[in-house]
Amino acid sequence: MLENKNQSRTGIENLGEFGLIETLTKQVEINNDSTLLGIGDDAAIIHTKQPNVITTDMLVEGIHFDLSYVPLKHLGYKAIMVNLSDVYAMNAQASQVTVSIAVSNRFPLEALEELYQGIHLACKTYGVDLIGGDTTSSTSGLIISVTAIGHQEESKIVKRSGAHDGDLLVLTGDIGAAYMGLQILEREKAVFKANPNNQPDMEPYSYLLERQLKPEARKDIPLLLEQLDVVPTSMIDLSDGLSSEILHLSKNSDVGIKLYEEKIPLDPTVINVCEEFNLDSTTIALSGGEDYELLFTISQEDYPKIKANPNLTVIGHVVDKSFGNHLITRGGEQIEIKAMGWNSFQE
Amino acid sequence: MLENKNQSRTGIENLGEFGLIETLTKQVEINNDSTLLGIGDDAAIIHTKQPNVITTDMLVEGIHFDLSYVPLKHLGYKAIMVNLSDVYAMNAQASQVTVSIAVSNRFPLEALEELYQGIHLACKTYGVDLIGGDTTSSTSGLIISVTAIGHQEESKIVKRSGAHDGDLLVLTGDIGAAYMGLQILEREKAVFKANPNNQPDMEPYSYLLERQLKPEARKDIPLLLEQLDVVPTSMIDLSDGLSSEILHLSKNSDVGIKLYEEKIPLDPTVINVCEEFNLDSTTIALSGGEDYELLFTISQEDYPKIKANPNLTVIGHVVDKSFGNHLITRGGEQIEIKAMGWNSFQE
Repeated sequence: MLENKNQSRTGIENLGEFGLIETLTKQVEINNDSTLLGIGDDAAIIHTKQPNVITTDMLVEGIHFDLSYVPLKHLGYKAIMVNLSDVYAMNAQASQVTVSIAVSNRFPLEALEELYQGIHLACKTYGVDLIGGDTTSSTSGLIISVTAIGHQEESKIVKRSGAHDGDLLVLTGDIGAAYMGLQILEREKAVFKANPNNQPDMEPYSYLLERQLKPEARKDIPLLLEQLDVVPTSMIDLSDGLSSEILHLSKNSDVGIKLYEEKIPLDPTVINVCEEFNLDSTTIALSGGEDYELLFTISQEDYPKIKANPNLTVIGHVVDKSFGNHLITRGGEQIEIKAMGWNSFQE
Repeated sequence: MLENKNQSRTGIENLGEFGLIETLTKQVEINNDSTLLGIGDDAAIIHTKQPNVITTDMLVEGIHFDLSYVPLKHLGYKAIMVNLSDVYAMNAQASQVTVSIAVSNRFPLEALEELYQGIHLACKTYGVDLIGGDTTSSTSGLIISVTAIGHQEESKIVKRSGAHDGDLLVLTGDIGAAYMGLQILEREKAVFKANPNNQPDMEPYSYLLERQLKPEARKDIPLLLEQLDVVPTSMIDLSDGLSSEILHLSKNSDVGIKLYEEKIPLDPTVINVCEEFNLDSTTIALSGGEDYELLFTISQEDYPKIKANPNLTVIGHVVDKSFGNHLITRGGEQIEIKAMGWNSFQE
């Protein structure tokens, strides 16, 4: 019997824009009191007493993701995480998102439903309402544009610009894993191309793959800081790599930063896989990106409040601008920190 | 002497994402008190006492615009207009926008600067602050994703859902011109392909071309309604064509609508060019789209307040849902209104 290859492949051109939006958003629930009106009008309506923070990020197929190894559900989840991470980096709580997608006709409805499963799961898990968006055709590939909205008391919103000489530099979680996860995926893609019957054992790399494919934004950190009664003096999220983010903090705060190599928190898997790939793990930590951890500075007097916390590691401190930005190696050398982050325009 | 073809063509790959954003947004001014922090951090910060309305739209090259005849400056302007129009359709005033673009390396910096000139001009003209965005590479073409934010007292925000039996249906301005402008551009593109030396006289079509290439959103209408002391019972903007928008109002308000053909305001140029193209002008008005006028309903008791206003035309009225949605032709025939709007997924 011949297989029906069109099974469960519904052409989106027949649904139209409104039908498509209705199908993809029918399971949307509104859970925040601040959402007065969600999807279905010219605009959504929100109302919070506190100021709002607003951020937006775009993910482009072939630039930010490769559908040959990124499951669509994970992609939808990650598109939300990337944006929520920016909200948490303001020490705010996220409450709403809008999601716009441009997609070519080659994607059947079922593929978009998978993408939206990830979006809905992320919204539900993080207590965020999907309040709007746009759905349109593209001439090639998939583009996802998300805007996230959060809120916080004005005095507790943290910018990149408040770090002072003497402050401590603090990092959440560990870093480098997302980048090494990507290296594993790229390697296995190349192996698969050469031999499609190869069944790789991905088990040893599960932590790295999860960090790459299904990152979690640090919603818990603004809550933890509130509980510890700490308001950071500056904060940023790690999307492009530690060195690039340190330079942002230093530039925006007009200070210098000293980072200690021995303090950088790395998961043992990262160290092992770096050896396997013959890569220097500090370089990976500095330039890797996509970890979505938070990097912040606190005044020294707040140190006792955070020192016992397993989520937080002091990795350096703030110095006068004239000292510049340096990595202090395990051997005691000072190396100037330069931007090694990712540039999507370079090939 | 050979012409230097690389003159004033700066490759964006050398600037990097941050350099590019800095170059494109250096002239940004913050003019609204509600903008507490603009571009340059993980998120922008805004604060209004009134509720916010939030809307987002994406424009995709090859789907929504054709760079062979759309100047980039106009495109930037239009991308903002499309979004502000949705804010005004809530009877709100617009205050902030974010702009994300995905663009391939084939665009030199100068092209993006032109695009941003249009964006900045639109923001300045409409009193809106550009507070953030994302700039990334694309594998092909240009994609622009805009989110617009506005505000209004909760009791004056107008949804699509408040129309009642007996309300009057009111339209701002005139319609059909943007669609006919597109027909002119498409015709001239075809003529140009056949004979590149042809110099068409576009003068007679200037109104149509302006409506297509440089539409203006109706910022004045919420202000006018405030001045006239009228709060519409429902409202929507005309992006997809009158028939499609009437169906949205009727569906969301759970009512029927009667539209009178003889009342539909058409510019004389539209009527003339429809004859030239052998098209029925009522069909164009119903299904044309991209006029960015506002369509709203008011209770009959408000009629005296609006009747003398040259910006506003009563084109029909609201009836019970059981009557359905109909066009009453000049000959007195009743024709059911069906969606004839544009579907970007259909080829």
